[in-house]
Amino acid sequence: MSSSRPVLFLVSAEAGCVRADPETPHVSVMDLGVTRGDGIFETISVCDGRAQALEPHLARFARSARLLDLPEPDLDLYRRAVLAAIEAHDDVAELYVKTVMTRGIEGTGVPTGWAYAAEAGDFARARTDGIRVVTLDRGLRHDVAQTSPWLLQGAKTLSYAVNRAALREAERRDADDVIFTSSDGYVLEGPTANVILRRGDTLVTPRTDQGILAGTTQASVFEFAAAIGLATEYAVVPVAELATADALWLVSSVRQAVPINSLDGVERDIDADLSARMTAYLLGRRE
Amino acid sequence: MSSSRPVLFLVSAEAGCVRADPETPHVSVMDLGVTRGDGIFETISVCDGRAQALEPHLARFARSARLLDLPEPDLDLYRRAVLAAIEAHDDVAELYVKTVMTRGIEGTGVPTGWAYAAEAGDFARARTDGIRVVTLDRGLRHDVAQTSPWLLQGAKTLSYAVNRAALREAERRDADDVIFTSSDGYVLEGPTANVILRRGDTLVTPRTDQGILAGTTQASVFEFAAAIGLATEYAVVPVAELATADALWLVSSVRQAVPINSLDGVERDIDADLSARMTAYLLGRRE
Repeated sequence: MSSSRPVLFLVSAEAGCVRADPETPHVSVMDLGVTRGDGIFETISVCDGRAQALEPHLARFARSARLLDLPEPDLDLYRRAVLAAIEAHDDVAELYVKTVMTRGIEGTGVPTGWAYAAEAGDFARARTDGIRVVTLDRGLRHDVAQTSPWLLQGAKTLSYAVNRAALREAERRDADDVIFTSSDGYVLEGPTANVILRRGDTLVTPRTDQGILAGTTQASVFEFAAAIGLATEYAVVPVAELATADALWLVSSVRQAVPINSLDGVERDIDADLSARMTAYLLGRRE
Repeated sequence: MSSSRPVLFLVSAEAGCVRADPETPHVSVMDLGVTRGDGIFETISVCDGRAQALEPHLARFARSARLLDLPEPDLDLYRRAVLAAIEAHDDVAELYVKTVMTRGIEGTGVPTGWAYAAEAGDFARARTDGIRVVTLDRGLRHDVAQTSPWLLQGAKTLSYAVNRAALREAERRDADDVIFTSSDGYVLEGPTANVILRRGDTLVTPRTDQGILAGTTQASVFEFAAAIGLATEYAVVPVAELATADALWLVSSVRQAVPINSLDGVERDIDADLSARMTAYLLGRRE
């Protein structure tokens, strides 16, 4: 994908931020992050050397920690690690930094943490031409975060095997990505993205009390919408509204906003003009 | 928990089984096992130096790999690693060996694998006195493995954050363990165990086509039941039948069969005699 070298900073209360060789193993086979997917992460876009929506990402990192009853992450330390990793990385147009905190080696109670920076893939074509998406049932009701908080819906955990399986199912259906739906028929989110619909002059995204992640990129898109005079709305969105929306996007860090040009095998018009303006706004964010 | 030292063997197609220091990190921060909980595992009991139900565990390991579209694990190699780890470990009464295979470092397509042996905890009291259990909704219908295979129900994956969160919820409810129920009201399984009910002279366990793991220990309990003249049954079990069952157990590797002495805060009689005979049978397994 690129010839620039990834950069790794290990994060611990004991040693602070310490640069380390990403090619060398740093995680124990007894770490609950790997034996149980028991930990949290964030992925932060970096454009022209600036971390985008860094504070919302850090706030969500802390929120995920609370949902998993993990120790409170030292956000100052993680912020420092993110900035140090960006600083140490080769100067490239688009980068991402992933922050991870696991519950640590079983029995120690000491979390394992790091920030890992690497060059982002090239999403230019997805951003302009769009992607093919299929809807897949996540099997859970839309209100499950309220009724069954132990299901960890709305937390960004390392237990993402289902999200990866959903993407393989999309590939089998000749698609690029997924919109998860609730068992009672509402639009939720993508495996690693939020859904945005345009209805006339309004941008709509599913309400985050439905066990979905509060999107940092989605929030930026809504700021953009407000700035250009579009209305915005957080809503409970029945699946049928996907078909009748004027345009659809999946929005996320790194890939940013990509229009959906096919839904469940049915071709859709994309809003090329609005997509281009969104992309320009998102790539231009300077926090 | 113990003064004996854990033993680690790394498993790879390239190098075979290689003993390694478990105190040293062996997993990359780019390994999908830790960044996405994308991998599989088995935990095998070892009593008096003999691995129990090793072949059923290896067969289930391969089944989980298929459910996750992972490369087929080389079972000869994992079997060799398990036996070598047992051989290398101090001679203790009860041991466990965990086998893990992750999807490996992102982009390489080469899985990461190992077998890790350590002394088991002391479950003597749980086996005789029993444990307190609460039912928790898993949020999914009982037939979801058929309708939505991408939810990976029935695969033993590294994405166990929800299972761990359920155990924390049990602790908050002053209980030791959990029985997951389906959103449509059926008994499923524990986070790391199968459920067995006794109804008169019949032992009953939920049918494995309900997105639950086929239990290796449960299979052994059913062999034991047949040997002593009890009937056995795989069934779709409505939640209400837990309250009316004559006795309840959670059965799993390592902890083996533990009677349930309290369900959702209601005290229950345990079947002490049958529990003791089950435990003796399970600990005495020599495969």
